[in-house]
Amino acid sequence: MPPEADPRARAIAVFDSGVGGLTVLAALRRRLPREDLVYLGDTARVPYGTRSPQVVTRYALNNARFLGGFSPKLLVVACNTVSAVALPALEAALTVPVLGVVEPGAAAAAALRGGHVGVIGTAGTIRSGAYQAALGRVAPGVRVTAAACPLFVPLAEEGWTAGEIPVRVAHRYLDGLVASGIDTLVLGCTHYPLLRAPIAQVVGPRVRLVDSAEAVAEAAGARLSRDGLARGEGAGADRMFVTDLGGDFGALARAFLGRPIPPPEVVDIS
Amino acid sequence: MPPEADPRARAIAVFDSGVGGLTVLAALRRRLPREDLVYLGDTARVPYGTRSPQVVTRYALNNARFLGGFSPKLLVVACNTVSAVALPALEAALTVPVLGVVEPGAAAAAALRGGHVGVIGTAGTIRSGAYQAALGRVAPGVRVTAAACPLFVPLAEEGWTAGEIPVRVAHRYLDGLVASGIDTLVLGCTHYPLLRAPIAQVVGPRVRLVDSAEAVAEAAGARLSRDGLARGEGAGADRMFVTDLGGDFGALARAFLGRPIPPPEVVDIS
Repeated sequence: MPPEADPRARAIAVFDSGVGGLTVLAALRRRLPREDLVYLGDTARVPYGTRSPQVVTRYALNNARFLGGFSPKLLVVACNTVSAVALPALEAALTVPVLGVVEPGAAAAAALRGGHVGVIGTAGTIRSGAYQAALGRVAPGVRVTAAACPLFVPLAEEGWTAGEIPVRVAHRYLDGLVASGIDTLVLGCTHYPLLRAPIAQVVGPRVRLVDSAEAVAEAAGARLSRDGLARGEGAGADRMFVTDLGGDFGALARAFLGRPIPPPEVVDIS
Repeated sequence: MPPEADPRARAIAVFDSGVGGLTVLAALRRRLPREDLVYLGDTARVPYGTRSPQVVTRYALNNARFLGGFSPKLLVVACNTVSAVALPALEAALTVPVLGVVEPGAAAAAALRGGHVGVIGTAGTIRSGAYQAALGRVAPGVRVTAAACPLFVPLAEEGWTAGEIPVRVAHRYLDGLVASGIDTLVLGCTHYPLLRAPIAQVVGPRVRLVDSAEAVAEAAGARLSRDGLARGEGAGADRMFVTDLGGDFGALARAFLGRPIPPPEVVDIS
């Protein structure tokens, strides 16, 4: 479709490996009610967190190419794994500004001024060291301890977000972090806010939790203002695409977005 | 590569969504020591069990097309989800005979002559009704109760195959089946044999477990003999391809295959 003549009227494009990024979409909608948002969830190839950086980068470029057709004014990468391993490749391939979730999440953690930050995420995110590096830049001298929590994504997608099983799984992944003395914990995966209750129960009230979805929405607003690209009027519209519509998409999307949505459009981008 | 002049010398091609099919590869190697086996694991797009039949069929055709380059004499679909939803599409598109795991698994369950068969598998497999239909054909009148167990695949891939967490998860999925009075349980997913111990503990000694990997290896041997395509001499070789080599592939493959393997070749088939 033709780009809007006024660049401020263009949409913000958002993509994620699947439904997890809907927590970012919800935060963007709250923070930027006037902006049009176009979301792509790559549900035909989710999850990304177990894949190699090469494959994650290939999939991210596919997604960005599809969203480029909407001539967006900003591309928000609502996936921690992509933000951790593929941001340089996206920036090199695209002319639109790209915003990932890792830098804003690290900055939000640093703002809490703790001395020992825990980071949890997918195997791909943790292995990349991206949060560790970003925290080292914004909070030099802070101690960082990271842990991959592979079962948290399927637990959240199964809807088992309360009760004994998620608490036991959280103990198995997080007891070591708690014992190491963290005072801050970055939820470095867009699925993890759904497991906030069992995570909070296991780490206890002295550990502050950082949700990068809120942080990236703040950063997106600041970026648009700085570039003179914020939309000054009107009510923003949402448009939603997925690469596959599995049986439980509606229920899942509702859990992540916090409200029901109409069925998204299904596209084949491969 | 050029097909072997003697059709008996051609390889058996095997594919799965990832590493789960290595349980089938191991059974084929035991049953058919003289045959060459070519395996493709679509690790860049695993899992299939949560995806729509349309996407599973597209991926299955990609995989079969790649393996067609080896001019195999038989294609074994070592993935229950593909066997359940995409077998007709594969048979229509290919000239090579195709063998899935559902029919042999249902036949093996029927041979035990129980009165009430439970079937567990991915959401895609169970939603398809393929096992229910196959059991209806080979054992008319048998009662069938099916349940999807989505967390079993990530549990097996995380290596949490013993201890309290898998037992609790198994209780949550299987207590209803046990209460309904099943006497036989089909492990309708190639990952589930790794969870055999907690599954057996939860269903108890009166429920007989059926592993479709053994059943499909038997069926493959019978099919080659019937068609005069069995290899009469020599020691078969294995060749292995994956579409992505994630960080833990070696350890995972070893768990599923029961022995270490050399690193597979990585191919981009998308």
